[in-house]
Amino acid sequence: MDGCAGPVYRPGMDPAAPAVVDFWFDFSSPYSYIANEWVDALAARHGRTVRRHAILLGATFQAAELKSPVSYPIKREYSIADFARSARFDGLPFQFPADFPIPTQNAARIFWWQHDTVSPAAAAAWSRAALRAYFTRGVALNDVVALKALAGASGLDADAAEAAWNDPVWKARLKAENDAAIAAGIFGAPSFLVDGELFWGNDRKPQIERWLASGRF
Amino acid sequence: MDGCAGPVYRPGMDPAAPAVVDFWFDFSSPYSYIANEWVDALAARHGRTVRRHAILLGATFQAAELKSPVSYPIKREYSIADFARSARFDGLPFQFPADFPIPTQNAARIFWWQHDTVSPAAAAAWSRAALRAYFTRGVALNDVVALKALAGASGLDADAAEAAWNDPVWKARLKAENDAAIAAGIFGAPSFLVDGELFWGNDRKPQIERWLASGRF
Repeated sequence: MDGCAGPVYRPGMDPAAPAVVDFWFDFSSPYSYIANEWVDALAARHGRTVRRHAILLGATFQAAELKSPVSYPIKREYSIADFARSARFDGLPFQFPADFPIPTQNAARIFWWQHDTVSPAAAAAWSRAALRAYFTRGVALNDVVALKALAGASGLDADAAEAAWNDPVWKARLKAENDAAIAAGIFGAPSFLVDGELFWGNDRKPQIERWLASGRF
Repeated sequence: MDGCAGPVYRPGMDPAAPAVVDFWFDFSSPYSYIANEWVDALAARHGRTVRRHAILLGATFQAAELKSPVSYPIKREYSIADFARSARFDGLPFQFPADFPIPTQNAARIFWWQHDTVSPAAAAAWSRAALRAYFTRGVALNDVVALKALAGASGLDADAAEAAWNDPVWKARLKAENDAAIAAGIFGAPSFLVDGELFWGNDRKPQIERWLASGRF
């Protein structure tokens, strides 16, 4: 493989949908929290909308034989400081959660339930509510009591949210999204697909911005 | 540990040297090649000079239990494309080498030999010559014949360069730099230390720039 790869149209993606920026995130990913705050405005400045995909990093990590950066000695300390610094760089509040990382399948199932039964916009609102709750107030999204309360406080029907995350329909929906992400070459979060070009990481924002403004570079 | 860590003054660093940007790199690191092209101009714009440290990522990877991104399935393909895209983003030529990664201890020993017997500027010139040779023309820095020819073509005494990389003095110098880097918390390349603050990655350029322009954020 040379270093000048052309556009990569990946399985599951629709190359005929140039008006969309695909965005994959995990509710336990600090860089996803940051990117989730800027991705809509960036896309809108270039006439695009965002298509969000809540996934589980545990699934993509397993497929790609990767681990969280905080699971490595030395890199762990740097990463925790970099999460906070990267949030400050964007002017965002940030508090490293006492329990990190956490399993986020219930929060992700709420996302897909909202996405499919209400609207992508409702799911996006939930993504902001839950990521902000975890990364600025330490709300434990893996605690079913805390998660149910958060759903209620975010304007959802709390009992219905609890029923959704226990429902095989939304369990299967999330699993299918994880599988599709892996098939599409996603190995981390946040990830972005712009006109078939994959970008990984909150720190690829300048490259995404140029791509949206000027096309392939 | 909370997310608002203060300045980290690390062992081996001199907190009384604010005019310096410390820069660690490996001759087999594509992101080091890119950063090596912008770090001097960025530092100069803010009244700083660059203090380069050639190291071996093999040593820091071992200490931090890390591996090259190209050693992982799925992430490998992305990373190779991202090396080239990141070079294009900065307007730099780039050609992914046929043999990658390679052991770079001989090139790094030439760096320290030049650094200590001629000047840091001479070592910096060698860093540019060798990184450009490997990442734009595929010159195999691990091939002693190719490396000796490159040294000669770069204005060095080729025989003296070969003697230097075989000399226990420069072997020990490089080992001491690897050990100092690990002690300073360096786990990857390129890495930067600005007023006690550690930055890892070519993609931390915008954060480094703001830090130099406006101080702590």
